Amino acid sequence: MEYVKDFKWKKGMKVSQLVDLLRNVGFQSIELSKATDTIIKMKKVGATTYLTFTSNMVTSGLRGFFAQLIKLKIPNVIVTTVGGIEEDIMKAIGEKFIIGDFHSDDIALHEKGVNRVGNLFVTTESYCKFEDTIAPMLDKLYQKKKRWPVSELLREIGLLLDDENSILFQAAKNNVPIFCPAITDGSFGFHLYLFQQKNPDFIVDVVQDFKNILLSTSQDEKKGLISLGGSISKHHAILAALLNGGLDYAVYMTTARNSSGSMSGATTQEAKSWGKIKDDSDASTVIGDVSITFPLAMMKALEVLSDEGLIENEL
Amino acid sequence: MEYVKDFKWKKGMKVSQLVDLLRNVGFQSIELSKATDTIIKMKKVGATTYLTFTSNMVTSGLRGFFAQLIKLKIPNVIVTTVGGIEEDIMKAIGEKFIIGDFHSDDIALHEKGVNRVGNLFVTTESYCKFEDTIAPMLDKLYQKKKRWPVSELLREIGLLLDDENSILFQAAKNNVPIFCPAITDGSFGFHLYLFQQKNPDFIVDVVQDFKNILLSTSQDEKKGLISLGGSISKHHAILAALLNGGLDYAVYMTTARNSSGSMSGATTQEAKSWGKIKDDSDASTVIGDVSITFPLAMMKALEVLSDEGLIENEL
Amino acid sequence: MEYVKDFKWKKGMKVSQLVDLLRNVGFQSIELSKATDTIIKMKKVGATTYLTFTSNMVTSGLRGFFAQLIKLKIPNVIVTTVGGIEEDIMKAIGEKFIIGDFHSDDIALHEKGVNRVGNLFVTTESYCKFEDTIAPMLDKLYQKKKRWPVSELLREIGLLLDDENSILFQAAKNNVPIFCPAITDGSFGFHLYLFQQKNPDFIVDVVQDFKNILLSTSQDEKKGLISLGGSISKHHAILAALLNGGLDYAVYMTTARNSSGSMSGATTQEAKSWGKIKDDSDASTVIGDVSITFPLAMMKALEVLSDEGLIENEL
Amino acid sequence: MEYVKDFKWKKGMKVSQLVDLLRNVGFQSIELSKATDTIIKMKKVGATTYLTFTSNMVTSGLRGFFAQLIKLKIPNVIVTTVGGIEEDIMKAIGEKFIIGDFHSDDIALHEKGVNRVGNLFVTTESYCKFEDTIAPMLDKLYQKKKRWPVSELLREIGLLLDDENSILFQAAKNNVPIFCPAITDGSFGFHLYLFQQKNPDFIVDVVQDFKNILLSTSQDEKKGLISLGGSISKHHAILAALLNGGLDYAVYMTTARNSSGSMSGATTQEAKSWGKIKDDSDASTVIGDVSITFPLAMMKALEVLSDEGLIENEL
Repeated sequence: MEYVKDFKWKKGMKVSQLVDLLRNVGFQSIELSKATDTIIKMKKVGATTYLTFTSNMVTSGLRGFFAQLIKLKIPNVIVTTVGGIEEDIMKAIGEKFIIGDFHSDDIALHEKGVNRVGNLFVTTESYCKFEDTIAPMLDKLYQKKKRWPVSELLREIGLLLDDENSILFQAAKNNVPIFCPAITDGSFGFHLYLFQQKNPDFIVDVVQDFKNILLSTSQDEKKGLISLGGSISKHHAILAALLNGGLDYAVYMTTARNSSGSMSGATTQEAKSWGKIKDDSDASTVIGDVSITFPLAMMKALEVLSDEGLIENEL
Repeated sequence: MEYVKDFKWKKGMKVSQLVDLLRNVGFQSIELSKATDTIIKMKKVGATTYLTFTSNMVTSGLRGFFAQLIKLKIPNVIVTTVGGIEEDIMKAIGEKFIIGDFHSDDIALHEKGVNRVGNLFVTTESYCKFEDTIAPMLDKLYQKKKRWPVSELLREIGLLLDDENSILFQAAKNNVPIFCPAITDGSFGFHLYLFQQKNPDFIVDVVQDFKNILLSTSQDEKKGLISLGGSISKHHAILAALLNGGLDYAVYMTTARNSSGSMSGATTQEAKSWGKIKDDSDASTVIGDVSITFPLAMMKALEVLSDEGLIENEL
Repeated sequence: MEYVKDFKWKKGMKVSQLVDLLRNVGFQSIELSKATDTIIKMKKVGATTYLTFTSNMVTSGLRGFFAQLIKLKIPNVIVTTVGGIEEDIMKAIGEKFIIGDFHSDDIALHEKGVNRVGNLFVTTESYCKFEDTIAPMLDKLYQKKKRWPVSELLREIGLLLDDENSILFQAAKNNVPIFCPAITDGSFGFHLYLFQQKNPDFIVDVVQDFKNILLSTSQDEKKGLISLGGSISKHHAILAALLNGGLDYAVYMTTARNSSGSMSGATTQEAKSWGKIKDDSDASTVIGDVSITFPLAMMKALEVLSDEGLIENEL
Repeated sequence: MEYVKDFKWKKGMKVSQLVDLLRNVGFQSIELSKATDTIIKMKKVGATTYLTFTSNMVTSGLRGFFAQLIKLKIPNVIVTTVGGIEEDIMKAIGEKFIIGDFHSDDIALHEKGVNRVGNLFVTTESYCKFEDTIAPMLDKLYQKKKRWPVSELLREIGLLLDDENSILFQAAKNNVPIFCPAITDGSFGFHLYLFQQKNPDFIVDVVQDFKNILLSTSQDEKKGLISLGGSISKHHAILAALLNGGLDYAVYMTTARNSSGSMSGATTQEAKSWGKIKDDSDASTVIGDVSITFPLAMMKALEVLSDEGLIENEL
C-alpha cells in the first residue's frame, strides 16, 4: 500500500526528484507518475512506440522536444495532423512564432496579418514562406515518381530540410515514418491541389499509407503508445495497433473528457472494450495541458532510461 | 438592453417556447439562443451551409436528425469523420446500437464482443456486417472507375443504401456532398487497403476532393457553418470557407475549451484572427454536450423557418 | 435492452416529448433522462428533498424557477450560498440584471459600476439597494431576539419580502428552510459585521443551524437530493443526509469533473464509498450547464408529476 | 517581443531551469511562468498575501507544502474549507491517507470503511480518531471562553498540535490566521453541534471573524492572492481584499471554467469588473490540476526568493 506523503521543497531540486515526489501527492500528479512508469516499461521491453500529437503542440516549443525524442530513438512511428507538418517546416526555414495572449483583440490581429493559436501567434507571412518552400519541393518529388504515400512524401521533405530541431528532419534521418491521415486538411492540401491541377497524374495515395502504418509493427511485437491530445492522430495510431493485436502500453495525455463519447476524450478504460489496449496492459491517462505534463513525465523517463544506458546521454 | 427574466414552467410547454425563455435565463442558455438566431439568419440569406459532426454523434441518435436536416435542405455541404460513415452504413443495413453505461466493466465487454463509445455500445458483429457490406460495394465502384475522390465514392455508396434515416442515403438523394478528409482512419480504411492489395490501380484521390470542397462554394456566396464537436471535420469546413473568403455565420457547439490552443477548442473569436470568420459575422459558441444543445437550438430554428415557409412542413 | 433511436424533429413538439426522445439519443442526453426519472421517483415516494444551487444560478433566470418549485412543494430543504440570498433580495426589491457578454471589456465595465458574472451583469447600484434594504431588516430582527440561526434569520427576511418569484419569500411562505453555511461570505456578511459592531450581543449561530438541518429529516425517511453546481451547497446537503443514513436518490448537475478530487466534481459513484448515497440508490450525474439541463430535466418531471396529480396544475 | 523556443531536455535539469524553459513553450506553460512572476513580485513588494485552497489539497501531499510555505512566511492569511482543517488534524495525529484509484469499486470500499477522494482514500477510522481528538480540545477551549471567532479557535487547536508538517501548527506558531467561513460544513460541524447541545452558551462567532479577516490587511497595503481551486475559500479572500480596495496581484490556479458563470470558474478578467483585482494589477490564471501546476510554479518562485535572500534557505 502506498501512502500520501507531505510534499516539501528543497533548494535546487531536480526535475527527476520532483516527479518522484509527485508520485505521493495526489490526483493528476499520481497519474503523471504512472505515465512516466509506463513510458519507461515501454522502452525497456523494446516495444514499437507510437508518438502522436496535434498541430498546436508543434506551434508550441514542444516541437524541438519531439525532434529530440526522435533523435533519442524514443518513438518508432509518429502520427500527427497536417498543421504540425506545415509549422515544423516554417520553423525549419527560420520563421519565428510569437508569444501572445489568450485575451487578444482578434480583429486587430487579423488586420495585422497575425493568426492566433491560443496564446501563440503565427504570422500570415510565415504561411507565405511555407508556400514558397513547399511548391518547389513538390516539383522535385514529382520528378521522382507520381504516386506518393503520405509518409514517403513527408520523408522526402524531411531530407530536404536542415534543422536539428525539425521533426521532419530528424524523422527522415532516423528512419521514423510520419503518418498524417488527413494530409489535405491545411495549407499543404491547398498546394497539393494546385500542383495536381497542373499535374493531373500526381497522386497522394492515402490507402497505400494505411498499409505502411499497418506494417510498421506486427502481431508479435510489443506495442506502446504515447498519445498527446486527441484527434485523428490519437485514433490512427490506436487503430493501427488494434489491427496488429492491440497495445501493451498506453499513455494518454489530454484535456478532453469522456462525458460526450468523443474519440478525443475516450479513456484507456474505454479502449479496453475495443481491444485497442490489451486487458492486462499498462495504461495511464493524465488530464491536463501537455505543455506542462508531457515535459515533466517524459524528462523523468529520459533520466531513468539514460541512467540505465538505454538512451544516449550526449546529444 | 436585455434583462434576465425569471424562468417559469407552464404545463404543456413547447420546445420553441422553452428556447424563447432560455434567451433570458443566463450563461450557456443565452449562447444557445444566439446559436438559434445565427442558424436562422444563415438560412434566410441563403448562405451555403456547412454542417460538420464527429463519429460519436452518428453513434448516437442524432444520426437520424442529420438525415432529416439534409432532407430539409439545411446543410449544403457535410464534413465528418470516417467512423460516422461506417456507423451510418451499419445502421442503414439494420444494425442496432445499445444504450449502455459510462461505468462499465470494459474487460467484460471486450470478452462479449461489445465496444463502448461513452455510454453507448456497438457490437463487433455490427462491424462484421459493415465489412460484408462494404467489400462488394467497392467492387461495384471499381467497375465504374479506378480513381475516386472521397465525396464521389461516398455518394455512390449512399445511392446503394435504402434508409430514409441514413445520412449517406439522404445526402446522395439530395446532392449534398459529404467530405471526409481522413477516409482511411477507420475500418473503412482497412477495407480500402485490402481492396487496393488486389487492385493496385485503385486510388482514393484526396487531393481532387480538396478541389471539390473548395468548389462547393465561392467567394461571392454567403457562407455559414454549423460545427458540432471538434476534430478535422470542424477544421476542414473552416479551411474550405477561409479559402473562399471566410464565414459570414458560424455556430460552434462543443465541449472542448480554448486553454490548450487546440483546434477543437478554438473559439469563434480566435477564428477571426485568421479571417476564418469575417470580422462582422454572426458567430456563437455553445459549450455543452451536443446531444442536448443541438436538438434544442436546431428545433427552434426549424420551427421558425417552417413558420416562414422556408422549409417543408411535412416530412 | 434499450437501443439508440434516430432522433427526428416534429413540428410543434412539446418539451416533454423532446425529453422522451433524448432518452434514446446518447451521452449526456441519456443521463439527463435518468435525472428526470430519479426526480420523479424521489417525489413519488415522498422523499425529503434537498435542492441545492450556487449564487450564479440566482443571478440567472433560474431564480424564478426555484421559487416556483418551492411553491409546487418540490424541495423540502434548500441549501445555497450567500450570493444567491443577496441577489434574490435585490430582485425582490425590483433590481434588474442585464444580459451581457462573456467577452467584455472588464475594466470599462468597472468604471461604469457594472459587475460581470459570466455573460450577466449586476450593477453596483443593485448592491447599494440591497444594503439599504438589509440594514433596517437586521434592526427588526434584533428587536425579536439577539441570537439567530441562519435559516431562521433568512425565514424572517423572506416574510418581509413581497415577490412571488422570490426564493426567500416562497420558502418562508411554504415553510421550506434555507440553509447557508457560509453566511458571511458576501455583502451580507459585511452588513452583519457592521451591525455587530453596534450591537455586540448580536449573534449569528451557525452551530445551532447545523442542528436545524440535521433535524430537517430523519434516519427513517427516504431522502433525495437535487444538486445544481458544486460548492458547499452541494456538500452541506450531502453531509446532512449522510448523518441521517445517506441519500436514497441523488441527481448531480454540474460542469465540474472528478479528475482533481474536488468536492464540486465528486461523482455519485464516489459518494457511495462514503455512504453519502446508499449503495442501492438511484443516482445520476449530468455534465453540462444547468441553465439548459435543469429546465429540461425538471420540466419533464413536473409534467409527469402533474399528470399523476402529485403537484398542482394551476399556479 | 517574446518568441516560442524549441524545448530540449538536458540531463539532470533542475526544476527552476524547467520553469524557465516553459516560459517559451506555449499555452498553459506560459501562464504558469506568469504565475511564478506574479508570486515573486507579490513577495518582493511585501504585499499581504492570501493563500486559499480547498480540502482535497489537504487530502493530498500538498498539505506539507502549505505548512512549509507558512514557515517560509509566504502567506500572511489563509482561507480554506473545514474538510482541510479536519484532515490536517488527522494527519497531525498520525493518520495516513492511502493512494488509491479513480476507478474503484465504491460499494466495496464503503463496506471496508474506506472513503474515496478522487484517487486517494481516507479511512472511516481516521475520522473516528479525529473525533476522539477534537472533543477534548473543545472542552479545553470552552474553559477559556464561550464565544469563539473561527480563526481564534483554529489557532488554539494549532497550538495543541505537534507536527512540523501541520498547517494549523505552523499557522499558529507563525501567527498566520486561518479563516474558514463555513466551519460547520464537515465532521467538525457535527462535533460543534454535539458540544453546543451540552453547552448551549458555546458560540462560534462567524460575524466577528469577518471583522478579523477585514482587519488582516488595510487599504494602504499592497495585497496579493494565491488561490488554488475554487469554492468559498477563493471567494472569501477576494471579498476581504475587495473591501480593502482590491488586489494588486492575483494568481488563480484551477480546473474550473468560466462558461457557467460560477465563482469557482470566474477569471481574473471577470474579477476586474468588480474591482476585486485592480485594473493595473498583475494577474494570471493557470488552468490545470494544482497537484502539478502549484509545486512547479511555487518552487521556482521559492528558488528566486531564496537566491535574493527573501526567504530562509535552511528549513
